[in-house]
Formats: sequence, C-alpha cells, structure tokens
Amino acid sequence: MATSASNTEQGSITTGPVTTGPIEGSTKHHLPVPGTDLRFPSRRIHLTDGTHHDVYDTSGPYTDEAARIDLEAGLPRARDAWSRPAPVDGAATQLAWAQAGIITAEMRFIAAREGAAPELVRSEVAAGRAVIPANHRHPESEPMIIGKAFAVKINANIGNSAVRSSISDEVEKMVWAARWGADTIMDLSTGKDIHRTREWILRNSPVPVGTVPIYQALEKVGGDPTALTWDLYRDTVIEQCEQGVDYMTVHAGVLLRYVPLTAKRVTGIVSRGGSIMAAWCLAHHTESFLYTHFEELCDILRGYDVTFSLGDGLRPGSIADANDEAQFAELRTLGELTKIAKSRGVQVMIEGPGHVPMHKIAENVRLEEQWCEEAPFYTLGPLATDIAPAYDHITSAIGAAMIAQAGTAMLCYVTPKEHLGLPNRDDVKTGVITYKIAAHSADLAKGHPRAQERDDALSKARFEFRWIDQFNLSLDPDSARAFHDETLPAEPAKTAHFCSMCGPKFCSMRISADVREYAAEHGLETQEQIDAAIAIGMAGKSAEFADHGSRVYLPLTEAATGAADA
Amino acid sequence: MATSASNTEQGSITTGPVTTGPIEGSTKHHLPVPGTDLRFPSRRIHLTDGTHHDVYDTSGPYTDEAARIDLEAGLPRARDAWSRPAPVDGAATQLAWAQAGIITAEMRFIAAREGAAPELVRSEVAAGRAVIPANHRHPESEPMIIGKAFAVKINANIGNSAVRSSISDEVEKMVWAARWGADTIMDLSTGKDIHRTREWILRNSPVPVGTVPIYQALEKVGGDPTALTWDLYRDTVIEQCEQGVDYMTVHAGVLLRYVPLTAKRVTGIVSRGGSIMAAWCLAHHTESFLYTHFEELCDILRGYDVTFSLGDGLRPGSIADANDEAQFAELRTLGELTKIAKSRGVQVMIEGPGHVPMHKIAENVRLEEQWCEEAPFYTLGPLATDIAPAYDHITSAIGAAMIAQAGTAMLCYVTPKEHLGLPNRDDVKTGVITYKIAAHSADLAKGHPRAQERDDALSKARFEFRWIDQFNLSLDPDSARAFHDETLPAEPAKTAHFCSMCGPKFCSMRISADVREYAAEHGLETQEQIDAAIAIGMAGKSAEFADHGSRVYLPLTEAATGAADA
Repeated sequence: MATSASNTEQGSITTGPVTTGPIEGSTKHHLPVPGTDLRFPSRRIHLTDGTHHDVYDTSGPYTDEAARIDLEAGLPRARDAWSRPAPVDGAATQLAWAQAGIITAEMRFIAAREGAAPELVRSEVAAGRAVIPANHRHPESEPMIIGKAFAVKINANIGNSAVRSSISDEVEKMVWAARWGADTIMDLSTGKDIHRTREWILRNSPVPVGTVPIYQALEKVGGDPTALTWDLYRDTVIEQCEQGVDYMTVHAGVLLRYVPLTAKRVTGIVSRGGSIMAAWCLAHHTESFLYTHFEELCDILRGYDVTFSLGDGLRPGSIADANDEAQFAELRTLGELTKIAKSRGVQVMIEGPGHVPMHKIAENVRLEEQWCEEAPFYTLGPLATDIAPAYDHITSAIGAAMIAQAGTAMLCYVTPKEHLGLPNRDDVKTGVITYKIAAHSADLAKGHPRAQERDDALSKARFEFRWIDQFNLSLDPDSARAFHDETLPAEPAKTAHFCSMCGPKFCSMRISADVREYAAEHGLETQEQIDAAIAIGMAGKSAEFADHGSRVYLPLTEAATGAADA
Repeated sequence: MATSASNTEQGSITTGPVTTGPIEGSTKHHLPVPGTDLRFPSRRIHLTDGTHHDVYDTSGPYTDEAARIDLEAGLPRARDAWSRPAPVDGAATQLAWAQAGIITAEMRFIAAREGAAPELVRSEVAAGRAVIPANHRHPESEPMIIGKAFAVKINANIGNSAVRSSISDEVEKMVWAARWGADTIMDLSTGKDIHRTREWILRNSPVPVGTVPIYQALEKVGGDPTALTWDLYRDTVIEQCEQGVDYMTVHAGVLLRYVPLTAKRVTGIVSRGGSIMAAWCLAHHTESFLYTHFEELCDILRGYDVTFSLGDGLRPGSIADANDEAQFAELRTLGELTKIAKSRGVQVMIEGPGHVPMHKIAENVRLEEQWCEEAPFYTLGPLATDIAPAYDHITSAIGAAMIAQAGTAMLCYVTPKEHLGLPNRDDVKTGVITYKIAAHSADLAKGHPRAQERDDALSKARFEFRWIDQFNLSLDPDSARAFHDETLPAEPAKTAHFCSMCGPKFCSMRISADVREYAAEHGLETQEQIDAAIAIGMAGKSAEFADHGSRVYLPLTEAATGAADA
C-alpha cells in the first residue's frame, strides 16, 4: 500500500496524495459483463492453497496496480462511451427505461457485479424497489444498485466543516472509504469551497456521490436559513446536477404543521436539513418551498437521472424520540412524494433513522414499505442506545444489522466520532468496516446467495490454521495480521498450528482435526453408524485413537498424510 | 485515575499496581439495603446543573477514594459477617433457601442494587430462572444476580496462557474489567501458576469469579487429555471450590455419541473443554466421566453454593455450523443435567454459542428455555458473521444484543483480539464497553424500568450542549472527552453551543431550541392547536420568529431568559 499519486497546488488548495495499491493478499481483476463488451471490477483474494476467492469491489482504479492515478485529470470517463437508449416519454432515466422493458448497459454491469439476472435488476428498478444512482454527468462512476433484493450497501459520509479539514483530506477520505468497501459516499461539506471540494471528489470518485444541496444553499445566504428562497435552492440543485452528483437528500417532507410536533421531544430536530427547513417554515409561516415546488424539482433531477434521497428531517435524535408522531407524519408525506417522483420518471429512495431501540426497529421498515411503495430504505444506523458516545459505530451497527435484516437496502455509516467531532481517516475506516459487518450480517440472515461463501472460506482457513488466508479473507487484513503479530510476531507463527490464546501445548482445533480423522477412519458419519459403533465398543479401535491422542500435536500435514499411524 | 496500590514480590511473581480512583465525573456511594444494616455500592455521576444520576456499580472498592487497597491482604471479607440461614435438607444454597421461601441477605442486597422487589429475586431464584453465584468462600464479592427478569449482565474472560501474560497483568485486567462494568470475570488461565493466579484474583475480586476446572486438570496431566481421570478432576474441582470460585463451566453434555456428529463440520469442535472431553471419550471409548459422575459433582458444588455453568462444548465455531445436530443434541443433555442439579439444590446456568447468523439466534433461546427449564442462558456473543477478525467485538455485539433481547441473561464478552491473540488491557476495556452497549440495548428493548433513564439523561445533556455531562453520563467518559478534544481541544469548547461537526455558524440543535421556544410561546402543543394556528397564519407571529431567526445563534441562556426578544 502506497500513499502517492499526484500532489497538486491549485490556487490555495493542496490536493495531497491518496492511497493506492491493492489490499493485502488480493489483486484487481476486470471480469466480463455478459451480453456486452464491458468488464466489471472484482477483487481476487489469493489463497495459499493456490485457489482464490473473488469479492465485490468498490475501490475503483486506486487498487489496480495497472492504473495510473492523476487526481487533476480525474478518473477515466468510462460511461461516456456506453450506449444509452433513447428517452422514454422524455425521461432518460434508469426508471423510465426499466419500466419500458429496456435492460441498460448499467443494469447488465450491475447484474454481473451482483451475480444476479439482468432481468431481476430491471424489474426491481421498474417497480421502484431498487435505484441505480448514476448521473449522466458522473461517467467516472462504476454503476451499482441499491435495493433489498441485492446485497446490502453502505454509505460513508465525508465533508469538511467551517472548523476543520481540507479538500485534500476529503479526496483521500473518499478514496479510503471506497477502498474498504463504501458503496457510495456523501459529501456533506458545509464550510468554504463547497463547489471545488465536490468537483475534486466527483472527478475522482468511482462510487456514486450524494449531497444535501440545502447545505450549499445555506452557505450562499450567509448561514441564515430564513433568507433561503426557492430560486436560490433550485439554482444550487442545477449546479450540483451539472457537476454530476448522483443522488440528493431533499427534506421535502418537513411540513409547517409537523414542526411543532417536535417541541416536546428530548432532542428536538437533529437533522441539519430538517432544522433549516423548520426554521424557514416558521419564519415565513408558510409551507416548505421544497414541498410546494416538488414537481419542478423532479423535472430538474430527471434531466440528469439524479436519484432522490427523500430526507427524514424529523428523524429521532434519541431513544426517547423514536417512532414518534413527528417522525411518522413526515414518513407519510415522503410516501406521497415518492409517488409524484416516480410518476415523473425519477428514481427515489427514502432516508430513515437515527436513534431507535431494538424493539422499535422493525416498525420503521414496515411503515416505510407500506407508505412509500417499497422504495429502497436508506437508514442512518440506527443507534440502539444513546449512552456510548465514542462507540456509536458499535451502538449503531447493532441497529443497522437489524434494520437491514428487516429490509433496509443501504446503511449510512456512523463513525466513533459521531456526536463528538469530525471523523479522521482512521475513523472513516473503522466506520466503513463496521458497516460492512452490519451489511454482511444482514446478507447472511437474508440468505443472500453469495454471502456465506466468504464466511465458509474464512472459517475453513481458520480451522486449517492457514493464518495468512484467514487474514486476507477478512474485511481488514492489515488489522487482523497486526493483532496476531502483537503476541506472536515471528513469521513462522503464521504457519503454526496454534496461536497465543491457548499456546503450543493445547489447541481445540487440533483435537477437532483428530476427531474428524478418527470418524472418517471408522465410518462414523450417520447417527446409526455411531450408535452401532458405540454398541460394539467403538469397534475396538480405542488403541488407535489413544495413539493419536498421545501425539495429538503433530503438524497437520503429518497427520493428514497418515504419518501419525506409522 | 491512578495506577498505584501495592507492588509485591512473592516468590518469582510480581503483583504490580492496579487502577484505582473514581471514574471521571463520578464518586462511589454506599446506599442502604432496606430491611438490613447492609449497604450496596452505587456510582453517582455528578451533573453540571447540580443534580446527579446514580448507576449500577461493579467496580468494587478500587473506585472508592476512601478505600485502602492492599492486594496482598485482599479485599475485606465483608460477607463473612452476613447472617446465613440454616441449610435446607442439607443444602446451604441460594436455590434451597429461595425454594424454602427464605429471602437471604444476598437477595436483599441484590434487590436494592437492581431496584427490584426482594420477593422477585427470591422467586426467580427459586424457579431456577436466576442464579446468584456466590461461593461461601468468596466473601470478598458483592452479590449479583443473573436472570432474564433483571438487567442483562456481562462477563469478561481473563487468564494467562503458556505463551503470554503474568499474574500481575491478570489481576489488573480483573480490576480494569470490573471498573468498566464487567459483572463477573472468568479466569481461563492455562499456563503455569494457575492456582496462584486464581488466588490473587479471587482475594481481590469484587465480582463473582468463574473458571473451567478442566483446564487446570489438564495441566496436572501434562496436557494430555486422554490421561485425565475422574479422581483428578474431582480433586481439582474441590481445590477450586475451597478457594472460592463462584461458578464453574462443566462440559458434561459432550457425550461419546455426539462427538462424531462434529466430524463433517466446517470448524469441528472449537470449545477447549469440549475438545478435551471429546478426545477423552474417543480414546477410552466410554462415556464422559463428567456425565457419569454428575450427581457426585452436584454434591461437591452444593457444599459451597458454587453455581454450574453447563458448558456448550459442541457450540458452533462458524456460521456454517450454527444450530446443527451436534449443538442441539448437547443442549438437550444439558436440560437433563439441569434437572438433576436443581433437584440436588445446586444453581445452574447454561452456556450458549458462539457463531450464529442473525436469523438463527432466536431459536437458540427458544430451545434453551424449553429444554433447560428457563435456566439463565449465558452466551458467547454470538458472532453474526465470521469475516471480520480484529472486529469480533463488533460482529459479536450484534448477536449479543439480539440474543439478550430474546432472553439471554448474561453475555460473555468478545474482544478485538478474538481468534487472533490474547487481549491486552485496552482490548479488555473495548470488550467490556462493547458488551455494556449490547446488554444495555437489550435492557432498553426489554423495557427494563431503569434502562432508559440514562439514555434520556445523556440525550438531554447533548441537546443542551452540556458537553461535560454528556461525557460523564457515557459508558466511557475518558474516550468521549478525548474524541471531542481531538478537534476542539480548548476548555471553552466544552461549554460551547456547537461542535466541530457543523462549526459555530450552524447547528441543528440550536434551531431546535428555537422551535421549542416558539412553540411554547404560541401554545402549539396539540395537533389541533397547530392546525388552528396554521389556518390563521400562525397567529401573525412570523415577525417575532424572524427576529429569532436572525439571531438564531444566541447563547442558549440568553434565549432562555427572553433576551432575544429585547
């Protein structure tokens, strides 16, 4: 792993190096997309037995040793060359094409990437149960899908604020988040240089980029929410569509009449966008311009195939406020808006909480599906308790895994710095890996066809003391290896048939291997065979096992070749 | 926080310093136990508004500034002075007393500590749905209860191995684990000096101590499982009972006929105790001596009121092996053994997995309750996926929270080093805090009367920008403060009404406070009032809110006193 690339001065902004090179033990491969001349990215993990294990890859060209990274030039604009069908009723969107029965290049790419049938991709998009966030003006991105029929996705938030961070930090955070598995990133910058920060991120991002346009609009009016206007907001949205933003959070469900419902809450309104719109509605004692101009907004987004992420501006900010009247009133309105957007050919997903105790999680998915026509649900955690700031990646991973099991399509990560400060590069990685865990746990629970293969491969490596394979099959080979090496740093320990937990004299895995060998030798596979063997004194074979037992710590290879019986 | 106490040489063993002093922002208090002259420990968190919040305290005298710690002398033998009822039918156990309708001093202490009725404690123990692990010979411990009617408990495993660690490390790990919230600890030492390590731990432990006696028995026979005998095991159990061990893991459900059921597994037998007994059974082609001598074992444990923790020697070690025939065959046998133990007056809990995907978690609790008469379930995680070594505290916290919500009474922690090496002091803290999160999340989901109070207190502090209260109400004040200070280190930032996430110019919490004030001023509390206000143009009050809006970042105190209207 290197941290080099270009280091460019442009005006006052330093765009520093980003992380390149493959993840330990793996290489990038581009595999064919059936029915096209396209190829999709895949990460190949090489195992010590000569086999390999391919996994879904979000990292873009940065992990490809053959790629030349030039941040100033940006990534290749690959999708510009892909064939694009004619618009359907004026809509050149994946939704319109899917509803017209057209399987686009993006759908075939995604189908190959997911290991799904192209027709499944098309039909889920057509039904509005899945979205493909792919702005025509972000041709650098590798298409991906968000929907409950597919692998659960995760998003990483990055972005500077007025207090901290620089453009180069944010570009590296994007590359770094994608490296470890972020399926999309959101640029939530609120400070200076929002436009330029986003430009650097978009031109170099292999994953879809989401934003919250109201943040930039607020900067344009000097931070005073009451000074916002529809015209200013609309122009900001167009600016971001033109740049290539793939999906936008729009808090159009924060209606004037819902705002007072938050007054008795423990933590009021915690969504930035929600509180901006609440302040505007109250100040002007009129309905939100996002709601009253929603159709116009749809028509703008449709022109670029930008996906709506209908924001939950009234999401709960504490366990006490979960599933309350304000939250669900807004969700119903998001359902109305979903219908409007889809009828105008615009893709839609729905944002969800936040902070929810475990027993109230399933209700969120149930109501979202019921009211929003099963539009993909995209939740922030939720945190299952409020009492662990500095560990909110964990409090929220519990809720995230459960809500994904219940049907949420994408999980927005939470880092250890949540509620306390801005995440640094380490926090971003911790957040991404933690959310890969939550998403993968849900895939397992949902019976996703590919999910268990990796668990089984890793567990088999663990059982066979293939330490290096265990490291490399894990979500974070670097940390797994480092933790192992803390107690047993020498290289030979990585081929040893024991670890520091039990020491060399005793190991349960070793005994298990002996049991396996013994059972195989004596044909003990079914309960009937076992009972029969027990009835006749285990076939008088005890002496043989005792022989094994007394040499139970032989190297596995020796035992496997039968040398133990010699 | 200091790290001093005694530093004693005894033979070749250095017993180093342990961590003492209160947790940041809190002090130890001893509150009266109604109906007795006893007092129970409680941690009082002091808030900046002059109020306080008391929380359950496991840390023992080490966090008491008034206590003098002398590791060599051990903790005061407080329980020696407590009144003890006469044996019932020869059994001087909490179970026997509870079944006889007697509420012991331990039960009253626990009731006060839990905020429960003494009769609930007695009846749950009498039914075998809860246990009080309190060996008569461990009078240094502060009684606690494990049962699903009470707060979910967590255990921290410590113990040296042949490769690493020393006695002083282990004593500090015990003190450290209890400091952060471990309700019990298990000493799983397998190397040299098992007896002496345990002695140091027991004499200084304020929490119940569990062990797995077969580990020490194995050391006595030079590590050869086939050389184990009942006599040697029995003597080891008696030795540990005499020393004061409060509960013992006994893998008496690993029967000869179950062993071959593991041969086809991905990860065979992963329990050390399970694999030892499997090796013994196969070598001697006879039934486990733990099973055939179980009644005798009961009678030994009864003499000290040591609690059984019936081990799941055939627990799954991977997602692939979860809920299989071997695992559930053993669980049925543990049910038989539960009946035998209880009939002889011995308390019992049941150990559970391990590695289980989310959708198979609930079945474990259902079958355990059905087959084992609702004896308290005590699970290791379970890990919800195998693919994240170095993050298994998180993979397992997901499973732990869910299995606790389903009724598990105690969760055995997993540290980031699981599968990779021995946990160090930092890993122990991470494991404990992570498991406090899982346990507390489950308490919230189960509606435990006291659980949400702490969430609400912390969230209220967060909403009101009482940063120091937010830190101190958290599970780990030191980390919360450190994370905050990484981006805003100056002391004034801890009273600022913003944080580094949004910067000083914009904050959603601030706007929420304005909304609240506005709603209160205009009597907007019910939906009817809100609708009426909207109908008449928000009572013409928009100018007033606009006034607020333009000064929306006033200090909270100024806004609260109405200065903003001046």
